Amino acid sequence: MSVLAAVVRELGSEPVVEEFADPAPEDAADVVAAALNPVDVAVLNGQIPFRRLAPPFVAGLEGVARLRDGRHRYFFAPEPPFGSFAESVPLAGAEMTAAVPAGLDPVVAAALGVSGLAAHLSLTATGGLVAGEDVLILGADGQVGRVAVQLARAFGAGRVIGVVRDGDSRRVPLALGADAAVSSTDVDGLAERLRAEAPDGVDLILDLVWGPVVGPSLAVARQNARVVQVGNSGGPDATLNAPSFRNRGVRFLPHSNFLFSPEDRAAGFEELAARAARGEVEVEVERVPLAGAPEAHRRLVAGAAKRKLVLTTTSGTD
Amino acid sequence: MSVLAAVVRELGSEPVVEEFADPAPEDAADVVAAALNPVDVAVLNGQIPFRRLAPPFVAGLEGVARLRDGRHRYFFAPEPPFGSFAESVPLAGAEMTAAVPAGLDPVVAAALGVSGLAAHLSLTATGGLVAGEDVLILGADGQVGRVAVQLARAFGAGRVIGVVRDGDSRRVPLALGADAAVSSTDVDGLAERLRAEAPDGVDLILDLVWGPVVGPSLAVARQNARVVQVGNSGGPDATLNAPSFRNRGVRFLPHSNFLFSPEDRAAGFEELAARAARGEVEVEVERVPLAGAPEAHRRLVAGAAKRKLVLTTTSGTD
Repeated sequence: MSVLAAVVRELGSEPVVEEFADPAPEDAADVVAAALNPVDVAVLNGQIPFRRLAPPFVAGLEGVARLRDGRHRYFFAPEPPFGSFAESVPLAGAEMTAAVPAGLDPVVAAALGVSGLAAHLSLTATGGLVAGEDVLILGADGQVGRVAVQLARAFGAGRVIGVVRDGDSRRVPLALGADAAVSSTDVDGLAERLRAEAPDGVDLILDLVWGPVVGPSLAVARQNARVVQVGNSGGPDATLNAPSFRNRGVRFLPHSNFLFSPEDRAAGFEELAARAARGEVEVEVERVPLAGAPEAHRRLVAGAAKRKLVLTTTSGTD
Repeated sequence: MSVLAAVVRELGSEPVVEEFADPAPEDAADVVAAALNPVDVAVLNGQIPFRRLAPPFVAGLEGVARLRDGRHRYFFAPEPPFGSFAESVPLAGAEMTAAVPAGLDPVVAAALGVSGLAAHLSLTATGGLVAGEDVLILGADGQVGRVAVQLARAFGAGRVIGVVRDGDSRRVPLALGADAAVSSTDVDGLAERLRAEAPDGVDLILDLVWGPVVGPSLAVARQNARVVQVGNSGGPDATLNAPSFRNRGVRFLPHSNFLFSPEDRAAGFEELAARAARGEVEVEVERVPLAGAPEAHRRLVAGAAKRKLVLTTTSGTD
């Protein structure tokens, strides 16, 4: 028996949609939707220590499957050689699975996945956001940042300000409920523009950018503020001035979903999914049939997708 | 009435030892010893926001005075225009005072002062050091670092490793109980030298240096390690690689004594002084008579003092 899957035949090459051995029938669940993430490209290039696989293997780290009783279940990192870009997946050996509430579109649940969980856990477990606190989100136009803006709002944050890559992108966090949006294009003037938007400073900086953006952003870190370091879309290195954060007691708290146990990640996902089911968090999704996986992969590499790319199977349409 | 004091007549000029108005007799206590610190130079240049004084004023932020009952009391930041570089000081308006145990030389108590307190509070309150943890101290040959090496030992740390400015300085932390000392002269090879001394990594990095030293030191930060940022003798700016600390969950915790209340600082000082009285912490002191304040100030500015400079009065000799 075999099922259709996006198969990596050789490290570094793009996946090919073809027949792949069916998971053992007692484990198998139908995949409804599978989200594409930058990490998938790194896995495919053999760059991720926790998922360095020998080809052939099925691409895709996360997705939502339908159980035999009709309920949906989110899954992350199925047991190799299986992956989420397939018609069927074994759930038993997956690193983590979590319930998807009945009221939530499983395609949206898949789209929230890793990036939504990063927004949720970084604001709550790592950042300790408390209602009424003011929040600055660096990279508010990216996948994690978009969810973070909505969650900050849902958690009762005071002022929510987004930093985005350019002037056009300012509309993205503003449409999601941010009070202000600032472009980081002219990085030399960034500190001043932020001071204008947050004259009394902020309590929490959610940093998805690092690079040349994080340093100027410290200008609006209030006494005892926290900087939660989640990503570095602006570059891996940043130059930081020690007195600028030390004398105000500003902490740098690292965040990676993988610093949390599978149980904590599952609990975080279920809380996030419940919020999404209540309409507190939305994700713009572009649905691509599984057969289009190679092209979707190419668009992900090129950074050409504006919305979250989610592969869907015929299981999701009936 | 007047007493001898090191008086600043003009911002930016060195203090002059001359007669100065005596504090009101009901407040006055005899100064026994007063430590010189880099912050004194900054105060004298009008660069410290919390102590921007109009000349003439008495130089010196901290010292130990003898009360009328013969007991000694450490004091910090007497009410302006008074300072610690004088024969007499009013204690009533000081920002903070703390008890000096009977068994401790008041000159050593003065020498511990701000820098000893920085070592104590940064390891305990900020760093949360727990017995058995391995500690790396960047700047282990400086005043704060020397006390920190001894305190880490006294707190039951596992391996204690010091990073120092050059090969000659390696002997400083080694003589104080460090297990290993590494020179930072060749900063390109620093990460490798540290890995050789701490192949399993460390739990806590006490950073008194920042600049080009802190980045390579992250190579030995263990999963969930803490970096306590206390000072920047190596320069105010450092370039940090985000994935190198984020993926291992390494936190950056800022430390300044002034992030703590006067009460917490007094409690910390008294705990430190008790350890010094028990011989767990020693400070090498160079005693300079109050009349030598201008020359001592010159040596501090030039960085020419190997030991902690402490001004003494005739009150300390009887």
